[in-house]
Amino acid sequence: MIGFIGLGIMGSRMASNLLDKGFDLIVYNRTRDKANELLEKGAKWADSPKELAQKADIVFTMLANPEIVEKLATGEEGFLSGMREGALWVDSSTVNPSFSRKMAQEAFTRGLRFLDAPVTGSLKPAELGELVFLVGGNEEDLEEVKPYLNAMGKSIQHLGENGKGSSMKIIINLMLAQNMAVFSEAVSLGEALGLEKEMVMETILNGPTAAPSLKLKKDKILSNQFDPEFPLEHIQKDLQLVSISAFEKNLAMPVANVTKEVYALAKQQGLSKKDFSAIYSFLSNSKTE
Amino acid sequence: MIGFIGLGIMGSRMASNLLDKGFDLIVYNRTRDKANELLEKGAKWADSPKELAQKADIVFTMLANPEIVEKLATGEEGFLSGMREGALWVDSSTVNPSFSRKMAQEAFTRGLRFLDAPVTGSLKPAELGELVFLVGGNEEDLEEVKPYLNAMGKSIQHLGENGKGSSMKIIINLMLAQNMAVFSEAVSLGEALGLEKEMVMETILNGPTAAPSLKLKKDKILSNQFDPEFPLEHIQKDLQLVSISAFEKNLAMPVANVTKEVYALAKQQGLSKKDFSAIYSFLSNSKTE
Amino acid sequence: MIGFIGLGIMGSRMASNLLDKGFDLIVYNRTRDKANELLEKGAKWADSPKELAQKADIVFTMLANPEIVEKLATGEEGFLSGMREGALWVDSSTVNPSFSRKMAQEAFTRGLRFLDAPVTGSLKPAELGELVFLVGGNEEDLEEVKPYLNAMGKSIQHLGENGKGSSMKIIINLMLAQNMAVFSEAVSLGEALGLEKEMVMETILNGPTAAPSLKLKKDKILSNQFDPEFPLEHIQKDLQLVSISAFEKNLAMPVANVTKEVYALAKQQGLSKKDFSAIYSFLSNSKTE
Amino acid sequence: MIGFIGLGIMGSRMASNLLDKGFDLIVYNRTRDKANELLEKGAKWADSPKELAQKADIVFTMLANPEIVEKLATGEEGFLSGMREGALWVDSSTVNPSFSRKMAQEAFTRGLRFLDAPVTGSLKPAELGELVFLVGGNEEDLEEVKPYLNAMGKSIQHLGENGKGSSMKIIINLMLAQNMAVFSEAVSLGEALGLEKEMVMETILNGPTAAPSLKLKKDKILSNQFDPEFPLEHIQKDLQLVSISAFEKNLAMPVANVTKEVYALAKQQGLSKKDFSAIYSFLSNSKTE
Repeated sequence: MIGFIGLGIMGSRMASNLLDKGFDLIVYNRTRDKANELLEKGAKWADSPKELAQKADIVFTMLANPEIVEKLATGEEGFLSGMREGALWVDSSTVNPSFSRKMAQEAFTRGLRFLDAPVTGSLKPAELGELVFLVGGNEEDLEEVKPYLNAMGKSIQHLGENGKGSSMKIIINLMLAQNMAVFSEAVSLGEALGLEKEMVMETILNGPTAAPSLKLKKDKILSNQFDPEFPLEHIQKDLQLVSISAFEKNLAMPVANVTKEVYALAKQQGLSKKDFSAIYSFLSNSKTE
Repeated sequence: MIGFIGLGIMGSRMASNLLDKGFDLIVYNRTRDKANELLEKGAKWADSPKELAQKADIVFTMLANPEIVEKLATGEEGFLSGMREGALWVDSSTVNPSFSRKMAQEAFTRGLRFLDAPVTGSLKPAELGELVFLVGGNEEDLEEVKPYLNAMGKSIQHLGENGKGSSMKIIINLMLAQNMAVFSEAVSLGEALGLEKEMVMETILNGPTAAPSLKLKKDKILSNQFDPEFPLEHIQKDLQLVSISAFEKNLAMPVANVTKEVYALAKQQGLSKKDFSAIYSFLSNSKTE
Repeated sequence: MIGFIGLGIMGSRMASNLLDKGFDLIVYNRTRDKANELLEKGAKWADSPKELAQKADIVFTMLANPEIVEKLATGEEGFLSGMREGALWVDSSTVNPSFSRKMAQEAFTRGLRFLDAPVTGSLKPAELGELVFLVGGNEEDLEEVKPYLNAMGKSIQHLGENGKGSSMKIIINLMLAQNMAVFSEAVSLGEALGLEKEMVMETILNGPTAAPSLKLKKDKILSNQFDPEFPLEHIQKDLQLVSISAFEKNLAMPVANVTKEVYALAKQQGLSKKDFSAIYSFLSNSKTE
Repeated sequence: MIGFIGLGIMGSRMASNLLDKGFDLIVYNRTRDKANELLEKGAKWADSPKELAQKADIVFTMLANPEIVEKLATGEEGFLSGMREGALWVDSSTVNPSFSRKMAQEAFTRGLRFLDAPVTGSLKPAELGELVFLVGGNEEDLEEVKPYLNAMGKSIQHLGENGKGSSMKIIINLMLAQNMAVFSEAVSLGEALGLEKEMVMETILNGPTAAPSLKLKKDKILSNQFDPEFPLEHIQKDLQLVSISAFEKNLAMPVANVTKEVYALAKQQGLSKKDFSAIYSFLSNSKTE
């Protein structure tokens, strides 16, 4: 049986795909109501991470940040203490690489195995089973879980030993965060200079200087409506993971750190729960004219 | 006869295309030797901007920065004083929009006409006549010069009145500058985290978070060879034009201003004349390990 | 007779001190009502900068920014065209050094003399005649105007040739702007960490890490009342002068440029006319809790 | 008997003052040679943090960063496992406030007591017993250790419960770091504008915009000699503690984060072990002219 911990926007859809492909599933979430739909479709419920671990062969986690992962993993009622000798933990949460390595160590010292396997793709790809898994860890462990990953995703990239899946993941989210901030400033400049907003956006988006991912946010920016797909506070947290990782490696990242603070300012202005493209509404001064 | 002032890397190739398409050409450059090839192909030489203006129906300029444009245009031997009543000046230099409007005013008060018509595309598109013209000014004036623009470019975008061609141009160069700095930090982080450089680059470049224009610089970054196509000091100057324009419009651009200073630091480290992708070599700390 | 152009908060108080010390004064301001008090005390009024120049032996200017100085100096009705051969222009406006040198050149080519003589000290010292003059230009020219400077200030520092007065002035305002931003972040951090606001402020202000000038703003920050002494938009303009000067000299100033943009964000949030210490209210997130 | 762990530049001088005032001392350091001088003066040596704790009534720690504190405190041979019921741990290391609270928790759950008591003042004040202690924790616990703190310092500030000593400490080091970066940019701008270096420095340092602490670094900057008193990598680490603390509290600190990255760039250029005033040599472009 497969265990799945963390049924947020992403996790619930991933777990649902495992069920749909016929795998037995036991789930845990801090609040049980998020599990209802899965339970109706046949998933079992565990009252604690530890109980889940005792009944599962493999434990997947999809949690909000390193602090929550650590708490659910290593606490007294944590799942690590419940897992059977040699069992495998697959963490799909977005965390910093040194944290993944620390969790790998926590697993190893208990005779367990570990893969960091965060995903790229948001809500829609999660629903359609079209995520991309970025994996760090042993080749054989990865082979073992491929059937499950393939149930949730469309491709798998093996990047090396533990921590390297997380490394690539935070790099991709860095690119996402930066592209959005950079594009928002560019469009705002265009408007300030008297160019028509949609025209500036089209000209940039149809040219070679725009990342394809920006096109997905065009309607939000155009309409100034920022319903969350990827909440701003999450991408800001990912930039913090980037910042911490760079510090650990003595790497200066001036532009990334400033972008991190610009998102932090947007949080202070009340945009935490909006889509991260709401950084446009913070940077644009159109409101003041 | 067409006048062309400014025979640098870009200007010389643009002028050459005009000649090749059969237009009569008179040229001026600060140093005459840059004109030799054109003169051999039939272009005429003018000893001063003013002399050129007296013999030309239309004057094109392709110069390094606003200061040089202003000097050659409005000085006592400047070309504006030599142009015939009603003649047309087309400035393809990359300048800030308020400067374009100021030059338009200088032209109008002398009974002349003005278009700002900067280009996107660097060395190779200039050579192949595949530039894109971004034009600000009157529709009729633009109609008049279309045969010449079509000789040098593959498309023309009319963005509105004077200054709006320059507006779009600095926005596109802003995107270029930012993309490169952001990508450089991302690749550097990957390397610092132990990922293989080429693999990080490929993963980003083949995904949705990379602007297509970044692919052109892949080999430079991979080989740490930064022969100039678009010199770093030029893109840094363009970021300064962005910064000045934002200030004039009361727009804050925190990320753009930091990127501007990161390029400035790279200049201080001796990278001014390298390709602007050399920002990677400044940001990467691979050299210190 | 002494001419004085620019009767804002600072200029009106400086002119008043000249009058009080018994000097004959002719004044000009864009709006005449600002001159009323001076006229009642015996100053004469000029209907244009040019008219003022024709009647004055020395012309003082105290204006908001380089653009306004240039317009009043070099326009057709500008004062330079009215000044007598060999007359002396003393510019106390805060401008960038290259602009001061340009104005010096404008003066010289007309057979006139020029000093840049900006001041440190704000409203109160202006009123009390306790400004400090930072002077760039010839020693003899400075000797000639010392009686007037001494009427308005308490000391004079001669920094070298033209432009060097302005150089030191923008450096001092850079320090002011930075100190306030840095202190605001520090106090905000203290509050966010649960320290009592006044206690944090006292601890910093009484220690060796606080510039003495910060003490003047303590009550504003403590009370969250930011009545303008030195408006935020002015210090932001001064940071722009710093940024332009650094660019001209190929100097990177990453911290100054970011602070400039933080003030620009505060402007976008409606704080332009507040005292520049209002940067605290922008940076603090106390309002959101 | 008092235990003292961590005999670096600061710790060795602090321990020496305890000895000189007649207190019995047992010490531990990763490398024993740093203890030699103290041992000659009568201190006892412990072979492990745990052994030290078993023999001491109070344990002082003065260590380089949170990671080292945690390792020596909570590891299997850590001192917490050796301390007697009710014993008191005083941590003078510079750490982030949430880490201090975490350590307090580690102590409490073992029936121990905890004070965070970092110090301001560097090498010289440490030597002279003139440090200032910034203390977080219970009033009674503080009373108990006052004789020891008074042996090492000249004053004590009690800032509230655990974590608040560390809060004030990182705020003061933030001010130090920022002042130095800001002053370095200001002096560099002066030089770039042609002002004489010493004159710019004097003018700033003698005016109201310079923090008194800057005067201590004047000779280093003037001579371009940066022998370490407070190594650059340490202040950069402290800025990281600031950055982490601000993130935890949802506070944006754009200027602090940029300054952090400027120091990080200086580290990449090989200045880690120099005094933190060496940020001047990184920011100045005097070397390139």
